[in-house]
Amino acid sequence: MSNIQAAIPSIPGFRVSGVHAGIKKNGNLDFALIVSDTPGSASGVFTTNQVKASSVVRNMGILAQETARIRAIAINSGCANACTGQQGMDNTYQTAQWVAQHIGCAEDEVLVMSTGVIGAQLPMDKIRRGIELAADALSVEGWDAAARAIMTTDTRPKTASTTLQAANGKTYTIAGVAKGSGMIAPNMATMLGVVIANAPFAGSLGSLLHTAADETFNRIVVDGDMSTNDTVLLLVNNASGAVEPPAGQYPDAVRAVSRKLAQDIVRDGEGVTKFITLHITGAPDTEAARHIAHTIATSALVKTAFYGNDANWGRIIAAAGRAGIPLDPDRMSLRLIPGESLIHTDASVLLFANGMPTDYREADAAAIIRQSSIVAWLDCGAGNGVATVWTCDLSHDYVSINAEYRT
Amino acid sequence: MSNIQAAIPSIPGFRVSGVHAGIKKNGNLDFALIVSDTPGSASGVFTTNQVKASSVVRNMGILAQETARIRAIAINSGCANACTGQQGMDNTYQTAQWVAQHIGCAEDEVLVMSTGVIGAQLPMDKIRRGIELAADALSVEGWDAAARAIMTTDTRPKTASTTLQAANGKTYTIAGVAKGSGMIAPNMATMLGVVIANAPFAGSLGSLLHTAADETFNRIVVDGDMSTNDTVLLLVNNASGAVEPPAGQYPDAVRAVSRKLAQDIVRDGEGVTKFITLHITGAPDTEAARHIAHTIATSALVKTAFYGNDANWGRIIAAAGRAGIPLDPDRMSLRLIPGESLIHTDASVLLFANGMPTDYREADAAAIIRQSSIVAWLDCGAGNGVATVWTCDLSHDYVSINAEYRT
Repeated sequence: MSNIQAAIPSIPGFRVSGVHAGIKKNGNLDFALIVSDTPGSASGVFTTNQVKASSVVRNMGILAQETARIRAIAINSGCANACTGQQGMDNTYQTAQWVAQHIGCAEDEVLVMSTGVIGAQLPMDKIRRGIELAADALSVEGWDAAARAIMTTDTRPKTASTTLQAANGKTYTIAGVAKGSGMIAPNMATMLGVVIANAPFAGSLGSLLHTAADETFNRIVVDGDMSTNDTVLLLVNNASGAVEPPAGQYPDAVRAVSRKLAQDIVRDGEGVTKFITLHITGAPDTEAARHIAHTIATSALVKTAFYGNDANWGRIIAAAGRAGIPLDPDRMSLRLIPGESLIHTDASVLLFANGMPTDYREADAAAIIRQSSIVAWLDCGAGNGVATVWTCDLSHDYVSINAEYRT
Repeated sequence: MSNIQAAIPSIPGFRVSGVHAGIKKNGNLDFALIVSDTPGSASGVFTTNQVKASSVVRNMGILAQETARIRAIAINSGCANACTGQQGMDNTYQTAQWVAQHIGCAEDEVLVMSTGVIGAQLPMDKIRRGIELAADALSVEGWDAAARAIMTTDTRPKTASTTLQAANGKTYTIAGVAKGSGMIAPNMATMLGVVIANAPFAGSLGSLLHTAADETFNRIVVDGDMSTNDTVLLLVNNASGAVEPPAGQYPDAVRAVSRKLAQDIVRDGEGVTKFITLHITGAPDTEAARHIAHTIATSALVKTAFYGNDANWGRIIAAAGRAGIPLDPDRMSLRLIPGESLIHTDASVLLFANGMPTDYREADAAAIIRQSSIVAWLDCGAGNGVATVWTCDLSHDYVSINAEYRT
């Protein structure tokens, strides 16, 4: 496991910034720019929503070309530029063109990301001003500002980095920023992430990112909704001079950075009071395990029970039972473990086994359910499928935040 | 359309009761008995949850016999008797045996239903006492008490009836009671329903009930959860002497009674402040239309926006987009209509068309979203599939009710 830091250091080869362009009425930062000093290689993972924002459609088109070289990623918050028709698409291209002019590159070397309210057009005068300010502010120390500038209902920036040594002795850094708090479900949510590295990767950047995202960003659920804008981009140049990282080191680090960012999104989920690790074993296969985990993670009844400090395990069993996977309750078992580790200590409690409750003491279950981090381990007794999903509870504050979002 | 009454009159051929057996600690009614004076024909629709309560498993077994004759339906609230293993199954059989002894019939002429907390064993001393009290209280006027005795988090009883005339001049009655408030989703939720008639039906009772349930009970969503106990039973005798109802009259009446009960469940959903009719047209096919409607109806973001009086239509479009159905946003349109009728008057507002917002006035949309009943009509422009689903908003009270359910 790579040694992951929350802070992002100066990374040779990248300059970044986050500024207030005026899209957000509250004065918060709302425009970020991430620039690679030289054209880099990139790959992306995108929302599977049939309704895709114009920036997503454009990025997918550019990165479908294996020869694509990327110099910059421009990100605005406060407006998703989704469901905005041809005008929305024109505005995405205009944004890329302005960024390209400012940093001196080709228009198709600029990727654009947007997040915020669906159905509003981008305020292009503010975007133009934001690009000017962001280009002027570019610095190797701009990561924290960039991470803040992409936030919407997030309460804190999400950053991660790790610095490693390659075979030729040079050190290189893999780092990332992400945002997301609501509309979070597997297969990319109202979630944006950018992971960068200043060392080349020997294999396919596309499969590197897909593998990492599949085990991290696609394993989180806040509310089960999936947005029109979800995107994770990986941008790599070779500014560090590092070559030949030890086998596994580079992908391990990309995955570890991604996991830190993904878990940060759940921890900062809208109204979240509990971080819940759902660990499913014994499912018919991996896909079934993921489906069961997702069904539990999106259950309003399971999530409100966690919020209410109620070890109402029957709701977890009932949610698993409606996942559409053949299961025999007489072979299922459910265990709660305090914390985030799957290693069950004396404090763990087996609640359900052989189709009925065990003789556990309610006080022992209550002691776990009151923790801020809880593992719920469901064994299905139906095969070898395993999946872990990170999720959270459903609180009064989630309702407040989303009932008042546009007001 | 049949003329549906909320009240259930005296129905010759049926005696019913609702009593306090002591299962609920608050003293509310918690045991209901519905008795047909003569052995009746019956059919059932059951939860598709893989984890089924013992009473569901037993009822399915009995009604799998086409020759089954049913005298009584016994229903307890306060304990679902689900996830309770062999002891739970033994208790279901014991319940049926005691009821059979009291009313003088065979054990397999008694169906049992349970609703309440999952994972607790039935308190059999209280069940025995409830059966004694309920048998003593049987009366043609017991319907309201029976409807109250099956409630859990319901705030009011749900009853419906209609009285019709057959070809031979005799009048007969179709009536029903139901309960359900949370854990409500298509394919039967924490929902129990009993529909009775005192006239024989010429065709298959099974297909009669399945057709009616498919268009009513299976078209409601409160929270997307599906319980271990969901059941709707149809019990028919010929006490009225009515024969040969006009073609269509009988199934129309069963469907109308079922629709009234199903809509009552949504209106009384946990914490509900708004009754929302989702009308999907232009989907690739009917199944796709239902799936899109279900995805919207279970979206926490859509439901909280309705709760917050926010006409945030982008969340509806985004939810439709993640339903897994191929859709082209440029061909989709969305209209809001005040009330429950699909006929759009001058007050209706087209919000989204041709892939972008229309030039609607926010004040007009706000005027609709503040109503207690709203139709959201989404046309997908992708075929002829149509579906209507009734759902509700997600409020602070839903969270409170379910965070505190067992406490």
